[in-house]
Amino acid sequence: MELKTLNEIEIISAPHSKISEVDFENLTFGNVFTDHMLVCDYVDGAWQKPVIEPYAPFMIDPSAKVFHYGQAIFEGMKAYKDQQDDVWLFRPDENYHRFNKSATRMAMPEVPEDVFLGGLHRLLEIEKEWVKKGKGNTLYIRPFMIATGHGVIAAPSQEYRFMIILSPARAYYSGEVKVIIAEHYSRAANGGIGAAKAAGNYSAQFYPTKLANEQGFQQIIWTDDATHTKLEEAGTMNVFFRINDTLYTAPTSERILDGVTRKSVIELAQRENIKIEVRPVLVEEIVEAAKNGSLKEIFGAGTAAVINPIVGFSFQDHYYELPKLENSMALEIKEKLTNIQYKLSEDTFGWTVKI
Amino acid sequence: MELKTLNEIEIISAPHSKISEVDFENLTFGNVFTDHMLVCDYVDGAWQKPVIEPYAPFMIDPSAKVFHYGQAIFEGMKAYKDQQDDVWLFRPDENYHRFNKSATRMAMPEVPEDVFLGGLHRLLEIEKEWVKKGKGNTLYIRPFMIATGHGVIAAPSQEYRFMIILSPARAYYSGEVKVIIAEHYSRAANGGIGAAKAAGNYSAQFYPTKLANEQGFQQIIWTDDATHTKLEEAGTMNVFFRINDTLYTAPTSERILDGVTRKSVIELAQRENIKIEVRPVLVEEIVEAAKNGSLKEIFGAGTAAVINPIVGFSFQDHYYELPKLENSMALEIKEKLTNIQYKLSEDTFGWTVKI
Ligand SMILES: Cc1ncc(COP(=O)(O)O)c(C=O)c1O
Ligand SMILES: Cc1ncc(COP(=O)(O)O)c(C=O)c1O
Repeated sequence: MELKTLNEIEIISAPHSKISEVDFENLTFGNVFTDHMLVCDYVDGAWQKPVIEPYAPFMIDPSAKVFHYGQAIFEGMKAYKDQQDDVWLFRPDENYHRFNKSATRMAMPEVPEDVFLGGLHRLLEIEKEWVKKGKGNTLYIRPFMIATGHGVIAAPSQEYRFMIILSPARAYYSGEVKVIIAEHYSRAANGGIGAAKAAGNYSAQFYPTKLANEQGFQQIIWTDDATHTKLEEAGTMNVFFRINDTLYTAPTSERILDGVTRKSVIELAQRENIKIEVRPVLVEEIVEAAKNGSLKEIFGAGTAAVINPIVGFSFQDHYYELPKLENSMALEIKEKLTNIQYKLSEDTFGWTVKI
Repeated sequence: MELKTLNEIEIISAPHSKISEVDFENLTFGNVFTDHMLVCDYVDGAWQKPVIEPYAPFMIDPSAKVFHYGQAIFEGMKAYKDQQDDVWLFRPDENYHRFNKSATRMAMPEVPEDVFLGGLHRLLEIEKEWVKKGKGNTLYIRPFMIATGHGVIAAPSQEYRFMIILSPARAYYSGEVKVIIAEHYSRAANGGIGAAKAAGNYSAQFYPTKLANEQGFQQIIWTDDATHTKLEEAGTMNVFFRINDTLYTAPTSERILDGVTRKSVIELAQRENIKIEVRPVLVEEIVEAAKNGSLKEIFGAGTAAVINPIVGFSFQDHYYELPKLENSMALEIKEKLTNIQYKLSEDTFGWTVKI
């Protein structure tokens, strides 16, 4: 894939760069932003000319639909710098298409490819100093769209704003990740919006996650809301289970986000002849496997966290600790994946796209 | 109940009133706002001093959590003017308590009673000219809270803004309302946020509602997401079914909003010796009742729409038309309820509260 830059764009440069004030060694995820952002408004049924302008707060009406009815979607991507100082994206077309799928589900207009991908290209050309070299350093990319139309009536907005903001980032989770398997709360309904990257899906998880945190668990592995017997995904990661030497992960559905990292892990595993099966994963089989010692690993997969090994899980008030392995599949896959992302090994899949 | 006004508040008056520009006979629901709004910020773990100031757009950061993770809740209330030009609220304590229940479920701080109810009282004192006399005229009240804290990491915000905006309103729906019974899409999950007035619950319904609109139906009656066999509620209304001379409505649950109008209808019906049963209502029994002629009425109940008779419903591509009745229970209850709200009959329940 080749990414074109967008020339039909207005550019207003920031008077000075904040970059020298940033401590790139000590970043908290997602709270430092680069000098510029992309803004594109949808008015009168059409996307207007996009603008790249200094990152700054903006004006919005108190009755904007995003505040009242939650019409808001986003994506999460990363830019990586290789040894030659070139900047790369990882499967950006996947994020672009998923964004527009989310848009459709939330009754929002699709964003044109030249605004989303072309605009991102242009923005990254301007902000490339913010992408630091060295594995672990990334520039996190947050495209999002909000409903800006006025009016407190529960109906789709007529006006929208699409934006891209950029945040230099290192690791998402620090420290060990223990999870709890959901027995009461849920993140998605059948026929709901679980497969969309819709804002409302995330705040819905905050309270149950807070309860889990209070018990010493960082994340929840969500189960199907009807029976709580099938393992689905975590808050911002899809989940893989290794029983003996086979990896298992749930099929995507209208309740589960179709993660780019997930599908890359599946393809990588297949290439590496790691046995992998995509099929419903039952809580009871994982508990059973934990008991009889055949459960070797659980890990999360997502853009922000990359591959995140999980050290143990709790179910029905019992904590199951996972073994500490010499040959972790999670770490092997993480190594292979990040080597592709940072251009340290050949990208036989054609996943990486140069800026 | 008596409502105290809030004196610990800063008031910045609008330089001139827009009221003379408003055509009160031809209002579209929810798109005209009064001169002032109430704003109160939550910073450093505490609610700051509220301010009543001119209604206007405000500045917000592109990384505000409300845009990315949908931490946003609201309430919907109305003010009514009686023949003596006094302004009344209807069960405002119910909205206040429900608001804080929503807040808890969305991991947001509770709003103090003196800010929510006392602040509303003060705001209504200032805006009382905007409440017009005569049945059908109301001032719609929209208290809401959004997460204003910065940062694109999926975790609860540290900062929030509570606001109250006011919109003069007449009818919510105009014309006949036909509904479709949900067979695939859903609005809420078991263990989800359906019982909270959370922004994300509403945008989730826009796309399926758009599909229903395209088929000629104004609203959807949602069913349980696991089996689609139980009738739950509509987009912004609870639903009642009359079979022969008995009314039925679903019990509230974590999937269903505990509507103030719903509970008032139940209490009113009980006082009037109208037979009413709160129990799960099955799709198949309503279809059966429609077929054998015992289904007399379906109506929605909610603050915005008050009591909304439904003229027919569609299920499995078949349209069931409801009879046109001389003695509609929906209209009888609506009359009784609005008489209490407008102080045209005695409020034996103690539901109305004077400003
Ligand atoms: C709910 C959810 N599941 C899974 C993922 C992982 O998806 P991806 O690998 O595309 O980042 C994310 C994060 O993007 C997410 O928000
Ligand atoms: C989902 C939902 N159900 C029911 C209702 C009716 O509730 P109330 O009567 O309190 O307005 C509303 C509107 O407030 C609603 O949003």
